[in-house]
Amino acid sequence: MIFKKIAIIGVGLIGGSIGAAVKKRRLAGTVVGIGHRASSIDEAIARGAIDKGTLDAVKGVAGADLVIIATPVCLIPGFGKKVSRSLKKGCIVTDVGSTKSSIVGQLEKSMPAGVDFVGSHPLAGSEKRGVVSAREDLFKGSVVIMTKTKKTDKAALKKLGSFWKSLGAGRIVIKSPEEHDRIVAQISHLPHIAAAALVNSASDESLEFASTGFRDATRIAASDPGIWRDICVTNRKEIVRALDNYARSLAKIKKLVKDGSGAKLRRELERSRARRESLR
Amino acid sequence: MIFKKIAIIGVGLIGGSIGAAVKKRRLAGTVVGIGHRASSIDEAIARGAIDKGTLDAVKGVAGADLVIIATPVCLIPGFGKKVSRSLKKGCIVTDVGSTKSSIVGQLEKSMPAGVDFVGSHPLAGSEKRGVVSAREDLFKGSVVIMTKTKKTDKAALKKLGSFWKSLGAGRIVIKSPEEHDRIVAQISHLPHIAAAALVNSASDESLEFASTGFRDATRIAASDPGIWRDICVTNRKEIVRALDNYARSLAKIKKLVKDGSGAKLRRELERSRARRESLR
Repeated sequence: MIFKKIAIIGVGLIGGSIGAAVKKRRLAGTVVGIGHRASSIDEAIARGAIDKGTLDAVKGVAGADLVIIATPVCLIPGFGKKVSRSLKKGCIVTDVGSTKSSIVGQLEKSMPAGVDFVGSHPLAGSEKRGVVSAREDLFKGSVVIMTKTKKTDKAALKKLGSFWKSLGAGRIVIKSPEEHDRIVAQISHLPHIAAAALVNSASDESLEFASTGFRDATRIAASDPGIWRDICVTNRKEIVRALDNYARSLAKIKKLVKDGSGAKLRRELERSRARRESLR
Repeated sequence: MIFKKIAIIGVGLIGGSIGAAVKKRRLAGTVVGIGHRASSIDEAIARGAIDKGTLDAVKGVAGADLVIIATPVCLIPGFGKKVSRSLKKGCIVTDVGSTKSSIVGQLEKSMPAGVDFVGSHPLAGSEKRGVVSAREDLFKGSVVIMTKTKKTDKAALKKLGSFWKSLGAGRIVIKSPEEHDRIVAQISHLPHIAAAALVNSASDESLEFASTGFRDATRIAASDPGIWRDICVTNRKEIVRALDNYARSLAKIKKLVKDGSGAKLRRELERSRARRESLR
């Protein structure tokens, strides 16, 4: 057991998977789930993702040694502020939001003395949603980025890192919130926008001929628009920067196509192939 | 048996798969393969993709009722011209190139009287290459776009359509070469360039964190740069047009992100999700 009581605010795919993994590995005495619908709490209990649940976040976090905020990104700062007055001294608070600068900045300000906040972002998930899709092995082998700022307590950072490892994470990486946001803008947020724009720029007639390549390239465009709206709004600066870089890469290729510069075009495509293959 | 003799110029993935499918379904008396290396001809014979082979295209096509040019795109017009003088009267010639306007225009000019050319593009394939990856079921259920111009002979178009159906094609679509090129620019060439640019615009550090979404979105960037160079060079006009439309779609989303227009952004992402889901 690492924590006596863990409270999870938001028992969806990620929150539910954390609960299920904690319970399976017996990492906590009790797991309390906080939801906004009684039905999802019942579902989470039935699936073994939490021990008990409540709709009242302030009551739910009372006495917890670890509080994990796993709500949609835009709700995280508000929940942090709301529950702050009932947090136990010595409690560690984290979140699992996909953007960090805005969240970490706001939550660090909300935490009372004696409570440590450390931001987390497990790079795991799927286009599915809800506790019905939760899996205790969701984090197995995954990368978890944790944030470090000048306010971060080293002991809390270490303890939370051990917690993620216990949940199955393959690698823990420590970054500043800004570095985190730049990285995910490039490898997650930009690809999402690029896929959405691909789908939107094709004509209805052309879409009828979409085959495997197009489907693979645009699969992420089928993700939840609300989640992505939140991500875009909370990571504006880095997404705009990534989009500007992307526009430059596209313009470079366009020029080579327009000029019919076969040899240079081939070099550019070889560069992308080599980089893509290095990911395997 | 539909054809007494079929000659396939270029016995790679597509040419080899056509040969294997023809032989399996007994659609021809003889299948002759024309290659540029003795070893690939031997391999094609060993795999049952052709009955016999030659390095000499002019000799190989002699007496054939159907000639299929399945070489890389940039070599197709040259082979058509080269073999034209030894084509039998009544022969049908087709190609399987991924771009059509340039190829169809050149091949229609090269054909002697009594020989009919019809362009084909089976929307099947993979990032793999060579006869070692050939499969007799490669075309099963696939779409084949065939081209029709004012020079196209209707009987030849019909006969070739039946041939593709016999090979397993699920749907035959007739388009002008220009319509074809516009469609594939949007659903195949643009996504390829978009993926290459995504890979090239990410930093080395960010690439370390690439997960499933990024890998799916950029899988096509691992395809052969030589093939894609040829495609880009022979479909310049439509690719540039598709890239311009794409840049506009991206700029629209960028503006919404920059302005923090959450509601409009959500609508734009909902539109792309709905269109993407309609593909399933």
